[in-house]
Amino acid sequence: MDYPDSVRHLIEKLTGLPGIGRRSAERIALQLLKSPPERSRELSEAILAARGAVKNCALCGGYSDRELCGVCDDERRAQNLLCVVEQPNDVFVLEKAGGFRGRYHVLLGKLSPLNGVGPEHLRIAPLLNRVPLEKVSEVILALGADVEGEATAMYLAKELAPLNVVVTRIAQGIPIGASLESADEVTIARAMQGRRKL
Amino acid sequence: MDYPDSVRHLIEKLTGLPGIGRRSAERIALQLLKSPPERSRELSEAILAARGAVKNCALCGGYSDRELCGVCDDERRAQNLLCVVEQPNDVFVLEKAGGFRGRYHVLLGKLSPLNGVGPEHLRIAPLLNRVPLEKVSEVILALGADVEGEATAMYLAKELAPLNVVVTRIAQGIPIGASLESADEVTIARAMQGRRKL
Repeated sequence: MDYPDSVRHLIEKLTGLPGIGRRSAERIALQLLKSPPERSRELSEAILAARGAVKNCALCGGYSDRELCGVCDDERRAQNLLCVVEQPNDVFVLEKAGGFRGRYHVLLGKLSPLNGVGPEHLRIAPLLNRVPLEKVSEVILALGADVEGEATAMYLAKELAPLNVVVTRIAQGIPIGASLESADEVTIARAMQGRRKL
Repeated sequence: MDYPDSVRHLIEKLTGLPGIGRRSAERIALQLLKSPPERSRELSEAILAARGAVKNCALCGGYSDRELCGVCDDERRAQNLLCVVEQPNDVFVLEKAGGFRGRYHVLLGKLSPLNGVGPEHLRIAPLLNRVPLEKVSEVILALGADVEGEATAMYLAKELAPLNVVVTRIAQGIPIGASLESADEVTIARAMQGRRKL
């Protein structure tokens, strides 16, 4: 006997979420069946609520369930430091790492001519507006270390050049805890280029 | 900045599902935000649908989204072999292992005097009815190998004794693939008792 149809359907919908394979999906579905109905109702509603409430912050483009996100709405965050990222999720990654006290700007993508993504599809114009308006003194490019992230960084550096602002890029190198052995050649070459005096 | 409220709420609801810790819950929530809204809507609806549609099979007590489950509704399944399990999920576990061609009876629990669970709280009366009605020749007790499973098995053996039916219990011993070293003493003692001639 296979699972009842509705359970099989649920297992299919769960499978493929990050970290959830077929077997975990089965265990989760069966756990929900075993738990009181409120457990399922609350989970179902929480999914809809989050997906429905979360939109892009009107200023930085990051995720928020209000007009402005928690960073843009926080007057204690330095306005002169602006960190540019590709995706809303990157903001949470950097916030979790902690230590950055400036603000963010989310591009909502990266340049990718092969996929038809040009500068006009990204939030580049709002970035160029924000820099003089918010008297930004340093733009930190926290973009991916892939080819498209690279191209996006180069493009932004060129566009930002006339705006009298320092443009920096987060370091590329050996990840903390990793051995030299485990790093690829390009990473090692970048790490060598980016060496600093102790 | 922390996650928006609705996202934090979703992460809380996801955390604690089987195999999902705090970190996986975050990754799932962010993945849902990144995906098209239909992905969230379909998942949300699948959860509600499964929990709403699935009830206990009128005959065996297992999960089903119809009056009778797939096993009870299948005339090819042998009626004279009845396998007794504690929970509806156990039926899926046994069906997945394959090989069993009889039918099931789900107790919906196990005897646990400390938690106030007596025979009257379990589906024992329907079991005692089914045995003569379905001309069952063997009742296989596939209960847990813990103290309560043990007590339930003993109780059922006593109740079934007058019904002219063979009562068996699934073997307890070393799990396939495990070393003797990794098994606890009670399991080893049981495995010795249950030894079979080659």
